[in-house]
Amino acid sequence: MKILVLNCGSSSLKYQLFDMQGEAVMAKGLVERIGIAGSRVKHVRVSGKDTIREGDIPDHTEAIKIVLGLLTGADTGVIASLGDISAVGHRVVHGGEKYAKSVMVDSSVIASIEECIYLAPLHNPANLAGIHAMQTSLPGVPNVAVFDTAFHQTMPPEAFLYGVPYKYYEKDKVRRYSFHGTSHMFVSGRAAEVLGRPIESLKIITCHLGNGSSLAAVDGGRCVDASMGMSTVPGIIMGTRSGDVDSAVALYLVEREGGAARASDILNKESGLLGISGLSSDLRDIESAAAEGNERACLAVNMLTRSVKKYIASYAAVMGGADAIAFTAGIGENSDSVRRDSLAGLEFMGVKIDEAKNKGLRGKEAVISSSDSRVKVMVIPTNEELMIARDTLKLTQKKA
Amino acid sequence: MKILVLNCGSSSLKYQLFDMQGEAVMAKGLVERIGIAGSRVKHVRVSGKDTIREGDIPDHTEAIKIVLGLLTGADTGVIASLGDISAVGHRVVHGGEKYAKSVMVDSSVIASIEECIYLAPLHNPANLAGIHAMQTSLPGVPNVAVFDTAFHQTMPPEAFLYGVPYKYYEKDKVRRYSFHGTSHMFVSGRAAEVLGRPIESLKIITCHLGNGSSLAAVDGGRCVDASMGMSTVPGIIMGTRSGDVDSAVALYLVEREGGAARASDILNKESGLLGISGLSSDLRDIESAAAEGNERACLAVNMLTRSVKKYIASYAAVMGGADAIAFTAGIGENSDSVRRDSLAGLEFMGVKIDEAKNKGLRGKEAVISSSDSRVKVMVIPTNEELMIARDTLKLTQKKA
Repeated sequence: MKILVLNCGSSSLKYQLFDMQGEAVMAKGLVERIGIAGSRVKHVRVSGKDTIREGDIPDHTEAIKIVLGLLTGADTGVIASLGDISAVGHRVVHGGEKYAKSVMVDSSVIASIEECIYLAPLHNPANLAGIHAMQTSLPGVPNVAVFDTAFHQTMPPEAFLYGVPYKYYEKDKVRRYSFHGTSHMFVSGRAAEVLGRPIESLKIITCHLGNGSSLAAVDGGRCVDASMGMSTVPGIIMGTRSGDVDSAVALYLVEREGGAARASDILNKESGLLGISGLSSDLRDIESAAAEGNERACLAVNMLTRSVKKYIASYAAVMGGADAIAFTAGIGENSDSVRRDSLAGLEFMGVKIDEAKNKGLRGKEAVISSSDSRVKVMVIPTNEELMIARDTLKLTQKKA
Repeated sequence: MKILVLNCGSSSLKYQLFDMQGEAVMAKGLVERIGIAGSRVKHVRVSGKDTIREGDIPDHTEAIKIVLGLLTGADTGVIASLGDISAVGHRVVHGGEKYAKSVMVDSSVIASIEECIYLAPLHNPANLAGIHAMQTSLPGVPNVAVFDTAFHQTMPPEAFLYGVPYKYYEKDKVRRYSFHGTSHMFVSGRAAEVLGRPIESLKIITCHLGNGSSLAAVDGGRCVDASMGMSTVPGIIMGTRSGDVDSAVALYLVEREGGAARASDILNKESGLLGISGLSSDLRDIESAAAEGNERACLAVNMLTRSVKKYIASYAAVMGGADAIAFTAGIGENSDSVRRDSLAGLEFMGVKIDEAKNKGLRGKEAVISSSDSRVKVMVIPTNEELMIARDTLKLTQKKA
């Protein structure tokens, strides 16, 4: 059974085709600059040559036609015909309060995703474009929506509400949702497997540190707290996103820079590691500059590790301790120094990192705590696409 | 030596007259509704009858004349003449980055307090009004400014900077300042005395929980982190202030409610325990309602204790552990259930409360952790006025 996984951004589309027998990736790729001059497709087969295709792509429907063409093409394909694709799994960023699990897409699901556009104005329309395009190109093939917010829906009200008048929650569902749920679910599940214990008995803190970052407290397999919010801006400092700030800072930006839209742009796109360092949003650039003694690069790194450390401890507090801490995503999997510095000083809560195991570890699953560490610390490469494919398989088989 | 301590709000004035021999309060009082119809003075003598005086008071200068009259009056006084007042200590809310300690007031200090008005638009003008009025009424008597921000000035940049573009710090000093510094200094100092150890060797978390609330991490006597920010809104949920929110929530309020000024009003005056419970900003009312099963009252209390718990653990993380946790101010000194629930689940970091010692304890200094608790937990009634008086004495004696 072959399952196609789609992750549509406002001007991009990432895809992976899975053979669910063995959960193997057959092909994957990225379409960039959809609707912008200079569109580009990179198509990668596990066995076979890569393909680069340039030339304007006006919308997601056209992008998907091209992808389907590549997947079945004589020189580029990995399947004989589109009929081989049994189902399509879509990453959908915002499911609001309605979806705590993945669902088969029907007209009411589409309506619900539309209702959440005001909460994710950049992402949900792109996700919907992907769904619509797939319904057009592959009529009759089931689509499954896998929500970034779903895993976090188990948070209790005292974790998800903000201290603003309650009516804003009643009227407009103003609350913490948090994102990267598929990754937190995957990584916490895998952490339990690595520990060889049922997840129901474990308190796990998952640290998804990438260009966008969030941490989650997973108690007995259920998310009880997470660091992003109503939007994807709060939590720890990110590539270009500010992380947590005083609301007065947001209001200061509104007044100084001419309005809420501009303030939002600054907090989303010009802040974070980029805004502090003045150099780059990419931690690798900043770590290089810091190694050469650049003060503001050092500062950006220190802000990052300090905020990770604080969140880890606060999530242990919420759960009454922690059995495991798992690092994942671009920074979490690859930066040994961020892991080391984020954990420094956490001996008081039973964390002992084994620097010999941590140092140099990149993108590989491993336990990096010392054997006598009460809290097991691990690196677990995330795989959101595989989670989406698994949910898609499960839901479409259930229906069949 | 007699020292008068003044705490001027925008329409109020609190005062205490100390006899520094024995640090005894001779009289204290509160002027309310300055500049508003229905002004009222309550003047309390330690020995002697209280005095209530009603009748409009147009400004702080007039209010101070009345207070000085009461302090020396035949039926109301505690000193023979104004000449007995050696110095006046003023609480000043915002000292910006310039003042890490209290200072003797001169024209350059006044200019600096004026420069910080944009950071504390309600408080600093009132504090200045108090200073000016005292200069008029008691010419030649030295005034000392004691800043709410001063104690927190030792925070490192990674604690005080927000993840927004660095230029806003350079241009407008956008950063975390935090407040209640005089209280955090007093309480951490007293905690060290209770432990019988030098503060330089201690890691102390101070929890100032009142109508306004903040926590601080005090490492070796120096503040290294604190929960309020550029404004007095962030941190844990307060009486009418929201505490931490997603910046997107602030921007949502700007757009929905018509501007930054209105959003700020909501976050300052209509949020917090009041906004969640819909009942009251006073924890006592909310605890009563919660005891009767009111769901939103329970929620407000749970939000409060959860955020205190999270901050405590995050400050332990920043310091590499904690030797003591000290509760103070209206809620911290008086609510045994807030203390109990805020500490529940912190056994993993060595906190063991002795509920027999905690239960029913109100407004009294005591250790409430069990004898085998690695972290000592205590209640320490705060005394900001005494701290202001002490600093005033120290600075004026130094000069003399």
